Amino acid sequence: MEVFAVPGLPEVRPGDDLAALIERQGRLRPDDVVVVASTVVSKAEGRTADLSDFDPGARAREIAERLADLTDEEKDPRFAQAVIEESESLLLSAPFLLTKTRFGHVTVNAGIDRSNVPDADLLLLPEDPGASAQALAEALDRPVVVSDTSGRPFRHGQRGVAVGWAGIPASRDWRGEPDRDGRELGVTVQSVVDELAAASNLVAGEGGGGTPVTVVRDWQFGDHDGSDELFRDRADDLVRQALEAWDYDS
Amino acid sequence: MEVFAVPGLPEVRPGDDLAALIERQGRLRPDDVVVVASTVVSKAEGRTADLSDFDPGARAREIAERLADLTDEEKDPRFAQAVIEESESLLLSAPFLLTKTRFGHVTVNAGIDRSNVPDADLLLLPEDPGASAQALAEALDRPVVVSDTSGRPFRHGQRGVAVGWAGIPASRDWRGEPDRDGRELGVTVQSVVDELAAASNLVAGEGGGGTPVTVVRDWQFGDHDGSDELFRDRADDLVRQALEAWDYDS
Ligand SMILES: Nc1nc2c(ncn2[C@@H]2O[C@H](COP(=O)(O)OP(=O)(O)O)[C@@H](O)[C@H]2O)c(=O)[nH]1
Ligand SMILES: Nc1nc2c(ncn2[C@@H]2O[C@H](COP(=O)(O)OP(=O)(O)O)[C@@H](O)[C@H]2O)c(=O)[nH]1
Ligand SMILES: [Mn+2]
Ligand SMILES: [Mn+2]
Ligand SMILES: [Mn+2]
Ligand SMILES: [Mn+2]
Repeated sequence: MEVFAVPGLPEVRPGDDLAALIERQGRLRPDDVVVVASTVVSKAEGRTADLSDFDPGARAREIAERLADLTDEEKDPRFAQAVIEESESLLLSAPFLLTKTRFGHVTVNAGIDRSNVPDADLLLLPEDPGASAQALAEALDRPVVVSDTSGRPFRHGQRGVAVGWAGIPASRDWRGEPDRDGRELGVTVQSVVDELAAASNLVAGEGGGGTPVTVVRDWQFGDHDGSDELFRDRADDLVRQALEAWDYDS
Repeated sequence: MEVFAVPGLPEVRPGDDLAALIERQGRLRPDDVVVVASTVVSKAEGRTADLSDFDPGARAREIAERLADLTDEEKDPRFAQAVIEESESLLLSAPFLLTKTRFGHVTVNAGIDRSNVPDADLLLLPEDPGASAQALAEALDRPVVVSDTSGRPFRHGQRGVAVGWAGIPASRDWRGEPDRDGRELGVTVQSVVDELAAASNLVAGEGGGGTPVTVVRDWQFGDHDGSDELFRDRADDLVRQALEAWDYDS
């Protein structure tokens, strides 16, 4: 398997035809999988915003005030309002905002970025990254993963994850397949779209590299059952339930 | 970047010189990073065990009984005892065992495997995967990541993660570096060892493929600050605190 960044992509602007840009620069082969950083999907979809676009309600002001108290830093209630508007629900409001986006991804600040955004305060995640991936996959006639860099419980730091995908199942479902000793694998559902996003992030990086699109070549999903369930529902998300029941107390 | 499986590795046995096996089959180049599935590290280190090795205490019996009630399946208290003995602490005891291993990794059942293990009931994770990685890195004179397949909150399924690493920092610390617009990156610590483990898992797979070792070629850590903190301490692990405070109630 080879993973490489598509070179020479310009600054992406609202309305840009991202598929055409990728096609022109990418020299794609038939079996390639294309991984696209959500940043440039958002830019093409015009998902920039300014703090002045958000009118903070009571909840946003309350959250910003508590966060300011806890961190001894100024916290803009308009930012809290932006996060709330992007979220289906809040898992934590202190000591930071951990939310579930409207499309199902759990991340800090609803994945709103403040870096790599010119001429605007904020870059929101795509409204429906699955639909964005679908449109790109159709235009490119190849599987597409839309990725973001996101933190996770238990471990420091962030890694690439999938926020949208199309043309490929989210996971390889190994259940029922034999292990080396012929024993049936019991529980293994391998989230390949997350692993593709992680692999691509190694090459794309996080800074000013200008490499938002990577190509994964000579990798096959293979002859496995597939599953498209990636984001847990509340009912089977114990960590979400525990966080919602819990109150952070500095 | 290229990621490929080392071909032709045998069934690994207790006492095997894993570095020699990898060296013989791997045709390694100077800048390669080697990712080794914890399964074969455990096998080489003799970390197989039988259920009869474990004498269940009161806590293990209590846990197994509750799990049996919840799942309507038989649960072996000796297995619960094995998990307890491998763990520094329990984050959840129902509806499944989520624990922190003695070396710091949070995972279900302390990462004890029941597949890909011949002639034994259980395969425990390496006792100290960081030390295992260190020994392999010295013998191979290259960075080594010891990986495992592990679940995570909020998302279904599992993906490859690092449980040990040596010869490379755990993370690229981008803080202080500029983004595309010259703005300093605020929060980005990129856990490259986890991303390397995820990339390798795409190629190694979970089943009977017989490919526990992968090589990552033509990837550079690059000129970044590094950090070796990967596993969170209790004090800054809010999810752990919330889970410990919470009681699962079917
Ligand atoms: N060519 C180009 N690169 C961009 C643009 N925006 C971001 N990038 C690059 O895309 C990569 C990923 O950016 P990042 O902000 O981490 O994306 P995210 O992980 O989706 O939030 C980095 O190499 C950035 O320099 C853009 O508009 N054009
Ligand atoms: N050659 C060889 N392959 C093995 C051995 N044990 C496991 N594998 C393979 O290693 C890969 C990863 O196995 P897995 O059980 O998922 O490892 P884990 O993720 O570390 O728990 C699969 O391709 C297995 O078939 C072994 O002793 N020898
Ligand atoms: Mn982002
Ligand atoms: Mn990123
Ligand atoms: Mn394992
Ligand atoms: Mn595995």
